[in-house]
Amino acid sequence: VPEVEPVEFWYEFASPYSYLAAADLGRHPGVRGRRVVWRPFLLGPLFAAQGWQDSPFNLYPAKGAYMWRDVARLCAAKGLAWRRPSAFPRSGLLAARAAHALSAMGIEALVPAFSLAVYVANFVDDCDIADPAVVAAALSQAGCEADSVLRRAGTAEIKDGLRAATAEAQRRGIFGAPSFIVAGELFWGGDRLDQALAWTPADAAGRGPS
Amino acid sequence: VPEVEPVEFWYEFASPYSYLAAADLGRHPGVRGRRVVWRPFLLGPLFAAQGWQDSPFNLYPAKGAYMWRDVARLCAAKGLAWRRPSAFPRSGLLAARAAHALSAMGIEALVPAFSLAVYVANFVDDCDIADPAVVAAALSQAGCEADSVLRRAGTAEIKDGLRAATAEAQRRGIFGAPSFIVAGELFWGGDRLDQALAWTPADAAGRGPS
Repeated sequence: VPEVEPVEFWYEFASPYSYLAAADLGRHPGVRGRRVVWRPFLLGPLFAAQGWQDSPFNLYPAKGAYMWRDVARLCAAKGLAWRRPSAFPRSGLLAARAAHALSAMGIEALVPAFSLAVYVANFVDDCDIADPAVVAAALSQAGCEADSVLRRAGTAEIKDGLRAATAEAQRRGIFGAPSFIVAGELFWGGDRLDQALAWTPADAAGRGPS
Repeated sequence: VPEVEPVEFWYEFASPYSYLAAADLGRHPGVRGRRVVWRPFLLGPLFAAQGWQDSPFNLYPAKGAYMWRDVARLCAAKGLAWRRPSAFPRSGLLAARAAHALSAMGIEALVPAFSLAVYVANFVDDCDIADPAVVAAALSQAGCEADSVLRRAGTAEIKDGLRAATAEAQRRGIFGAPSFIVAGELFWGGDRLDQALAWTPADAAGRGPS
């Protein structure tokens, strides 16, 4: 039996399309029995590196107006709860550190449930996910002992780990979220999930980029 | 029998993803028997209005590198011919004017075949679509009398018509290509074609944007 390649799921807590992808991953039949590695990172430093000090959805109003409409349509079609947040983008820094802390503590199995709870806080309940109380509540919902995770999230080890993950994302060609990497192949956007799940190293051998 | 809404297909001759969408439209079962209105326009003025003097795929190298890979993958998966052009973006101005001329001359039924021929010139044969000889060849391939179409394309009526179409695109919220509009609803990107074809005014009534 050939080994099935794991799926790296790169996501940002501030990103509406990452919310959709996180929710889709849990329900997608192609994911069943497959290893999915949840890789939270920060888009802010990548955007800053190309001269954006804000989300492109704020910098480019037509693109932003479309995004809000598109996300609402997609959520309706998928039966996902959705409310446009009163502030955007919200800082995903603390949530991303908490997710890294879960991995460092050996309970990375709780990362998906925690991440979904953060997305629901941001994009359904309209809560500020930069607020430690909101992150703590999401940790509790995922069955974690929130205080110890938040303490760990504040350590230099975790801060450095998140910085390294963000640098890795940039080095590997990621420029937006969600992104998927399968067998070294990058896919951008939730609408590429089917394609990413179907990707095998044999495809890469047969299909040059140009 | 309820009338089926026409599909407006907004495209730019310089755009690789517009090539894919133009090719998909001809083969998509949901399009069968449905009226598709081909609306060529220029992205350049829309990009310039938000401060970009070049394609975002050139301005943002990570995004550009991904696009070339993504398009090659999609073409391979769809069985579409593809060669990365040696120059990008090429000006679609003359081709867009020629397409508008076809409509003005009452032979808009030839616009799809002409447009596909221009895309093949740009993205398979690596020809400069700003060259009148290349546009003339595409017109001939579509069965048009090239000289008279190119003469018409050079008139103030056609130049103004293309300018008006581009202004209309901007007014209606378009910010990239390809885009589809169905029953007043905007969809961006070839990967939204299924969703656009399934859209009905009843959806719009039931699904508020936020």
